[in-house]
Amino acid sequence: MSEINNQNNKEGLEHVAGNGLINRRHLLGLGLVGAGSLIANSALAADSSRVQIPAWSKMPGRDPSSYGNPSFFASAYQRLAGDPSATLPGSGVSRSPLHLLQGNITPNSLHFERHHAGIPDIDPAAHRLVIHGMVRQPLEFSYEDLLAYPMQSRIYFLECSGNSGANTGATAGDSSAAAIHGLLSCAEWTGVSLATLLDEAGIAEGASWVTATGADGASMGRSIPLNKALRDVFIALYQNGEPIRPEQGYPMRLFVPGWEGNVSVKWLTQIKLDDGPANFRDETSKYTDLLPGGKALQFTYPMGVKSLITSPSGLMSLRRQGLHEVTGLAWSGSGAITRVEVSADGGRSWADASLDGTGQDLALTRFRIPWLWEGGPAVLQSRATDSAGQLQPTRARVLTGYDPVNRYHFNGIQSWSVSALGEVKNVYA
Amino acid sequence: MSEINNQNNKEGLEHVAGNGLINRRHLLGLGLVGAGSLIANSALAADSSRVQIPAWSKMPGRDPSSYGNPSFFASAYQRLAGDPSATLPGSGVSRSPLHLLQGNITPNSLHFERHHAGIPDIDPAAHRLVIHGMVRQPLEFSYEDLLAYPMQSRIYFLECSGNSGANTGATAGDSSAAAIHGLLSCAEWTGVSLATLLDEAGIAEGASWVTATGADGASMGRSIPLNKALRDVFIALYQNGEPIRPEQGYPMRLFVPGWEGNVSVKWLTQIKLDDGPANFRDETSKYTDLLPGGKALQFTYPMGVKSLITSPSGLMSLRRQGLHEVTGLAWSGSGAITRVEVSADGGRSWADASLDGTGQDLALTRFRIPWLWEGGPAVLQSRATDSAGQLQPTRARVLTGYDPVNRYHFNGIQSWSVSALGEVKNVYA
Repeated sequence: MSEINNQNNKEGLEHVAGNGLINRRHLLGLGLVGAGSLIANSALAADSSRVQIPAWSKMPGRDPSSYGNPSFFASAYQRLAGDPSATLPGSGVSRSPLHLLQGNITPNSLHFERHHAGIPDIDPAAHRLVIHGMVRQPLEFSYEDLLAYPMQSRIYFLECSGNSGANTGATAGDSSAAAIHGLLSCAEWTGVSLATLLDEAGIAEGASWVTATGADGASMGRSIPLNKALRDVFIALYQNGEPIRPEQGYPMRLFVPGWEGNVSVKWLTQIKLDDGPANFRDETSKYTDLLPGGKALQFTYPMGVKSLITSPSGLMSLRRQGLHEVTGLAWSGSGAITRVEVSADGGRSWADASLDGTGQDLALTRFRIPWLWEGGPAVLQSRATDSAGQLQPTRARVLTGYDPVNRYHFNGIQSWSVSALGEVKNVYA
Repeated sequence: MSEINNQNNKEGLEHVAGNGLINRRHLLGLGLVGAGSLIANSALAADSSRVQIPAWSKMPGRDPSSYGNPSFFASAYQRLAGDPSATLPGSGVSRSPLHLLQGNITPNSLHFERHHAGIPDIDPAAHRLVIHGMVRQPLEFSYEDLLAYPMQSRIYFLECSGNSGANTGATAGDSSAAAIHGLLSCAEWTGVSLATLLDEAGIAEGASWVTATGADGASMGRSIPLNKALRDVFIALYQNGEPIRPEQGYPMRLFVPGWEGNVSVKWLTQIKLDDGPANFRDETSKYTDLLPGGKALQFTYPMGVKSLITSPSGLMSLRRQGLHEVTGLAWSGSGAITRVEVSADGGRSWADASLDGTGQDLALTRFRIPWLWEGGPAVLQSRATDSAGQLQPTRARVLTGYDPVNRYHFNGIQSWSVSALGEVKNVYA
């Protein structure tokens, strides 16, 4: 019956780019999705025997709870937790199921994880944060101490710099959006400005770097320039309203907006001011960008302008011809997302998607555009533009800048092919 | 040691209203909170025996998980679940712990609940939404059908119209912010515009109301005018990114932005167009506003402009003199929050708090202002102004409009007294 609807109204559609991209503003009044089933009025009015009252409508339900859980029937909404035995001990990862999620906020239970020595279970009463090094007065803070400070709340994305690295490989893996790009999430973070705490410790003359160390078994540490630390870095204590989760650094983590996730040091226990970077293990052996010719770039922190269609995406199948919503996420470490274009013909023509987010800097921005799929092959792509004027580059363009082995900071355009059968696949195009 | 810091810098503070309210912009550079402990440089450099390395820093931690949970140590962050045996069967409630939360987003597990026949556990594959009544063509939608439609994502508050009703009583209850005001939460909701679905069904001439019924054991139903339904009402399928929770109406609920929570019918199974309201049980026996003289107002949907200090708040204690952050939430069913003023002297003088949210219509807005408490008594209040120009009224002003028995739509100013010992209490002032 959907097909009948579609046939009736297709001519009213305004095509905005090749291979079926449609103007969202002109959909209303066309009744074009037509996914519902028609019911005869007589059936509703007269034939009460057709109405099956489900069991749950005939009895009282469960009582309220103090801490809620998802429906049993939504148990497929899970992170892709990596197999720890396949990696170094404690070097764990779980990816957000981006292809299943909607909107811009990632629920706390599905925010991606990345660990270098597993998740410590820290008692906040026994945890301390020390600020020392090139300061006038070293200071020590308990968790309770930090709760006394003025706070700030802001929606920020967080992305691992190794995210999407799979697409730097020689052949396109037959993977889902979550498997390729799931080291990306977005939450409202609340915490205490690092500038406030450094102000109390007093920054000594000549200090130019901040080094941060975690209380995990790896003593994971990273260095950031002092000017960034004073601009917008904070100690995150809450995530989407409640205390941050153990896998996000409970009881406290550094949060460095827009920069590669690894510098937002979790289980934060030491802040040291210095006149140079510490050159920690995780900023020398890892998290550096290998260049052609054997050199490497160190300290390339901001995440590039980037986007990704989450639906339809790899391993999905389109189950019917007709109108679909193409939707995905866009973000940039340099500001707000000002534009997302979508192509259904592998980049030959592009149309503007509508943006559905807060419009704030350094937050995920959901984009949406209607697409009429009539059974032909297609290659779906998206490309984002940010408020700094940067346009997301093609895969080929990104790769020319690096050694083929490099896996960090890959922000090339993602291509999903759609076969005549509706099967969606990761491709290089 | 904090006291020393405070004494040194107090004279640099810019007071913006009576009894200790301070200009937030002028705090930096004063090192005034001073909650951290000083450490001797020599202790850090020389006396390594003082450093206690905690157990969790000496071993690998836990593996990643597919669906995360809060820390064991954060188990106090729970909803206040009412005692079901104390109410009608299935008439359940749990309140968001507003005094413990931060930011503007409520995590899904802590979003308030209100049920009229308990929580049904609905299998989405067996659930149907029927649109019928004064339409050209009745339609039936499965959960999968709805997922095919264009969606929208938006951050919206939700508030029960009975929220804060405790403060209409003759004496001020000795309660927490959560117990009094916890039928209030905020999330990013994603779903399908009701206008899109009504467009497909075709609105018959003369239809002017939409009635909605849930699949719970109470068949909870409410009526809303068609013009509101076409403006911004949608079928919510996702909450903060993941499918809505059973207690929020899984697999689908109506969402009516800015209006009393009860009209956002959960477990939605029927939408009927009609030429008048249905006068369901929950819009006649309940959810009407009793007026002086025995009459009642029916269908008073939009929630008033309102705010509330969440910290410090009822049953809390200030544990030290000095600088504190006064923070809370503001919202309005008529638009965005444009201003929140705070008083520390029971309303004699007011100062503007800073606003820390997205600035979007119909969303919670966190406010913050520093307050220097030097041990004297105080009465803390907040009052919000919205983009429609409405100012939150005093308690007395609200009460004059209604019968003393009325408990709905109470948006009067909340007063918290602070004793010389730092004890915070709900008072009428």
